[in-house]
Amino acid sequence: MYPYEAPLKDMQFVLENVFGASAVWSQLPALSEHIDTDTAAAILEEAARINQELVHPINRSGDEEGVKFTDGKVTTPAGYKEVYQQFAEGGWVGLCGEPDFGGMGMPKMLGVLVDEMGYGANNAFTLYNSLTAGAALCINAHASEELKAQFLPQLYSGQWAGAMDMTEPQAGSDLRNIRTRAEPCDDGSYLISGSKIFITGGDHDLAENIIHLVLAKLPGSNGISLFLVPKMQVSEDGVLGEPNGVTAGSIEHKMGLKASATCVMNFDNAKGYLIGKPNRGLVCMFTMMNYERLAIGIQGLGTSQAASQMAVQYAKERLQGQAASGARTEGGSDPIIVHGDVRRMLLNIKSLTEAGRALAVHTGMQLDLAKYAEDPDTQSKAARYVGLLTPVAKAFLTDRGLDAAILAQQVFGGHGYIRETGVEQLVRDTRIAQIYEGTNGIQAIDFLARKVVGDNLVTLKQFIDELKSEMANFADDKAVAEVTLRFERLLECAEMINADKLSKPALLNACAVEFLDAFGYTLYGYYWLAIAHKAAEMDEEFASAKSYLCSFYIQRMLPKADALLAQILSGDAPVMDMPADLF
Amino acid sequence: MYPYEAPLKDMQFVLENVFGASAVWSQLPALSEHIDTDTAAAILEEAARINQELVHPINRSGDEEGVKFTDGKVTTPAGYKEVYQQFAEGGWVGLCGEPDFGGMGMPKMLGVLVDEMGYGANNAFTLYNSLTAGAALCINAHASEELKAQFLPQLYSGQWAGAMDMTEPQAGSDLRNIRTRAEPCDDGSYLISGSKIFITGGDHDLAENIIHLVLAKLPGSNGISLFLVPKMQVSEDGVLGEPNGVTAGSIEHKMGLKASATCVMNFDNAKGYLIGKPNRGLVCMFTMMNYERLAIGIQGLGTSQAASQMAVQYAKERLQGQAASGARTEGGSDPIIVHGDVRRMLLNIKSLTEAGRALAVHTGMQLDLAKYAEDPDTQSKAARYVGLLTPVAKAFLTDRGLDAAILAQQVFGGHGYIRETGVEQLVRDTRIAQIYEGTNGIQAIDFLARKVVGDNLVTLKQFIDELKSEMANFADDKAVAEVTLRFERLLECAEMINADKLSKPALLNACAVEFLDAFGYTLYGYYWLAIAHKAAEMDEEFASAKSYLCSFYIQRMLPKADALLAQILSGDAPVMDMPADLF
Repeated sequence: MYPYEAPLKDMQFVLENVFGASAVWSQLPALSEHIDTDTAAAILEEAARINQELVHPINRSGDEEGVKFTDGKVTTPAGYKEVYQQFAEGGWVGLCGEPDFGGMGMPKMLGVLVDEMGYGANNAFTLYNSLTAGAALCINAHASEELKAQFLPQLYSGQWAGAMDMTEPQAGSDLRNIRTRAEPCDDGSYLISGSKIFITGGDHDLAENIIHLVLAKLPGSNGISLFLVPKMQVSEDGVLGEPNGVTAGSIEHKMGLKASATCVMNFDNAKGYLIGKPNRGLVCMFTMMNYERLAIGIQGLGTSQAASQMAVQYAKERLQGQAASGARTEGGSDPIIVHGDVRRMLLNIKSLTEAGRALAVHTGMQLDLAKYAEDPDTQSKAARYVGLLTPVAKAFLTDRGLDAAILAQQVFGGHGYIRETGVEQLVRDTRIAQIYEGTNGIQAIDFLARKVVGDNLVTLKQFIDELKSEMANFADDKAVAEVTLRFERLLECAEMINADKLSKPALLNACAVEFLDAFGYTLYGYYWLAIAHKAAEMDEEFASAKSYLCSFYIQRMLPKADALLAQILSGDAPVMDMPADLF
Repeated sequence: MYPYEAPLKDMQFVLENVFGASAVWSQLPALSEHIDTDTAAAILEEAARINQELVHPINRSGDEEGVKFTDGKVTTPAGYKEVYQQFAEGGWVGLCGEPDFGGMGMPKMLGVLVDEMGYGANNAFTLYNSLTAGAALCINAHASEELKAQFLPQLYSGQWAGAMDMTEPQAGSDLRNIRTRAEPCDDGSYLISGSKIFITGGDHDLAENIIHLVLAKLPGSNGISLFLVPKMQVSEDGVLGEPNGVTAGSIEHKMGLKASATCVMNFDNAKGYLIGKPNRGLVCMFTMMNYERLAIGIQGLGTSQAASQMAVQYAKERLQGQAASGARTEGGSDPIIVHGDVRRMLLNIKSLTEAGRALAVHTGMQLDLAKYAEDPDTQSKAARYVGLLTPVAKAFLTDRGLDAAILAQQVFGGHGYIRETGVEQLVRDTRIAQIYEGTNGIQAIDFLARKVVGDNLVTLKQFIDELKSEMANFADDKAVAEVTLRFERLLECAEMINADKLSKPALLNACAVEFLDAFGYTLYGYYWLAIAHKAAEMDEEFASAKSYLCSFYIQRMLPKADALLAQILSGDAPVMDMPADLF
């Protein structure tokens, strides 16, 4: 098994040099009381240790063993329970949680890096605690003070786990169709009945209770409400009681993430508590969804990083063929990293991964500003940037995560197809990240229809203008011009879509994925310029590596945006005109 | 399980209308005595029946059960042996085989369509007979008349199976490093000793003997020779004798193709027979490899077609969301095929699959002309076109096969990640096709360095000129101009590479994949114009569907070539400059 090694130097660099974390934190009193540069560094180091030494070693074995479903109970693979306990005791589940209820109150721009380590070390394991943190976040944002006091401390401590119960067989991307019902009781609670599918961590043996956030409908209403439904009932002072009519009906057999339990969950008059207002459940759920969407993007990023390490290590060790410039050893074989095509793949993976990390930290920073900034203008602008960047982070990081895993597998040749090597597991594990928490098509439509066109391009223009101002400080004029050109073409394209949206109602849906991708590739161009610019502050070797990677990205990756924009300019007709029965 | 349905009408159309099969065959006496339009149609119909009714039903179960390795023997999943016997008895293994030794002598341009059905129905099953046909082809081309008479009839009848034994742990893409030895015996045979890995069908229980084609070195030589080494010894009159020192050491645990045995093969003084001349084994092996490379390309094509059918069926049945133009049913949900993004994915899959079929048949036609044409100019030009198109067919069909499978999985949403649905199996099964029989990177280097630049662009130019002449007959001037423009840019790019190849020795390796892909996307543009043009001869519905697909391809897929060419124009520096230790 290949080791996982957290890229601490790169992480510190993006956090501090590229995004100036300590300067950001110093302006946010709610954060600056918990965090400074040294604390952040210590947290990253400790997170690296636990993920490298405990979480990663059960990754391959967990894939082979898988979760088991026996007598209505889910059992996780060997080692999961023990590692989860140590992980929880380290306070990692509550890293970014509310300090009033036992969370550590750490900024998300730090949290995303810890998340990246988790997903890089073990996709399946990390999902369990990521969902728990997401559930806690939603409860903290929308539930009553009583429910917060009753449930948050044990969620942050990892003693209890969380799950998000939305999908039903007839209600996937379209939640209007859910049938789960909530009957009000005299004591203000509700009785929840219905069936949910595809519930990640719906049941397992890692924690003594599982707190489900369940979408259901109130009697006589088509609106959707959100309920907290514990697996085991909990007294007002937080003591576990009787089982609560929440049972796993079965688990799915999946392509990957085999150590993660994906459950059919049945609710049979289970006692639940309303979170937020009646019929406003989707609003509350989206608080959680936005964080989960970023977290799932980071699943793609963590996978990219793991793929990158493995592929680079293999390419340096594997001897095969000779360099075009002549073999290093007379008559012998060179490491395959000498070959142009192998380098192309490695550079592709590395340039996507490192720019991806910048996108993750950038999005995390906007979440922090939106949550903690005291100046209302700063706060509201950050909230709009969160809206703009979240679907991009979810879709682009996971799409590029699959690209990276597949390329890494290609670097390994035939060995990449063998399970023991571990790289094919990355492909299987990360594939779902493009689908769940809203498919990447749904993300793209959210981005283009709601965040770009729905806002009349105001936020997109403001965001790009700010990046342009930054780029004015960068030395490489030619590369800056390349990125600027793509941003301008992108805006022209957005104007065209905005002008045509009424006459062509299908245009947004038909062009959304290409538009998000064109934005993503261009944004990564900006990140590479920023990385190369800031790397000049670092040691010469580091600066040199970033400069080469930047050059590769601008010349070999950025042109992809042009093809995507050309595709969009063809409008909706090529996609919409063919009658369905001719397919 | 979703059914597999062979696209007979599309297949007949490409064969007869697009490539004028019966006119081609009528000019080739060696073929025209066996085949005419009616015979071809009957063969396709019968192939459809056996693949739909027998081969496909054991596809999912074979993936779940997998091959087993017990006491040194490989056992295939339930049903494989019975279906293989029926398949062999139908004469399918020897479909394109030499009639003098029991083959049916059918043209490859028909054979590729039968292969497509096999891979569409069941990747793992079809590999067994595809390798057997490839081994027979190599023996027929290079072995002595005695060996042909001794081995070919039982290979064509499927009574015996074939395998290709090249790779060793230290010799993958670079076969110079093989260590397997061949000691000459007094009777003219050899004793083969050594170990091979990743041997598809190296051992199994489908046939009573397995005929291995083994690369090995003669004493005192670094040249590579090819040997026929049967698992069970065979007397001169073809009767089975004693075991021959050929044993399977283990089987690999793989990402997919779980019903296909991938073996470590050990040869311990196994009796073998030289095929072709000493030290010229690679030349002989490449006869087999070229057919196998086309066959593996068709593995990608068959997967695309299966993915296409499944995704279209699901998109018509699954109700979710409402059309942008308003729901069909008031307040209800529409089939997801109304959504632009779902249509984008389906059109992407379909347009790649149908153009891919044209590439497969086109390559098959060139193989037939190269083998059977009596006019030497026709023959030698076809041989050059085989050389040009084979690496493209292998790499582009398999890369697009993975694209299609992944897009189809995306159409299925969460259900696409569940094993029972079957679409994730397509992803896992087809992934290896980009790696084995020479990775797609190796194919691209073969294409660019040997077939394009190595030939000083003569064959490429001639090939493109012929396509341009054809396009002069097509009505859609605008689309013709789009495709022509890309061919011209591609030639300019090839000229640039050709001019720079000496000063930049790494350029070919660093740009090969982009170059092959740019050629592939442009060539598919030509195929779509040809398909749309010829479809005008068909019924209105058929013609209309092809016209829509052509329009989609030209506007939404062809622009990808531009980005690829722009990437190449950056030269080798972005890929080669970064020192290895900075990775």
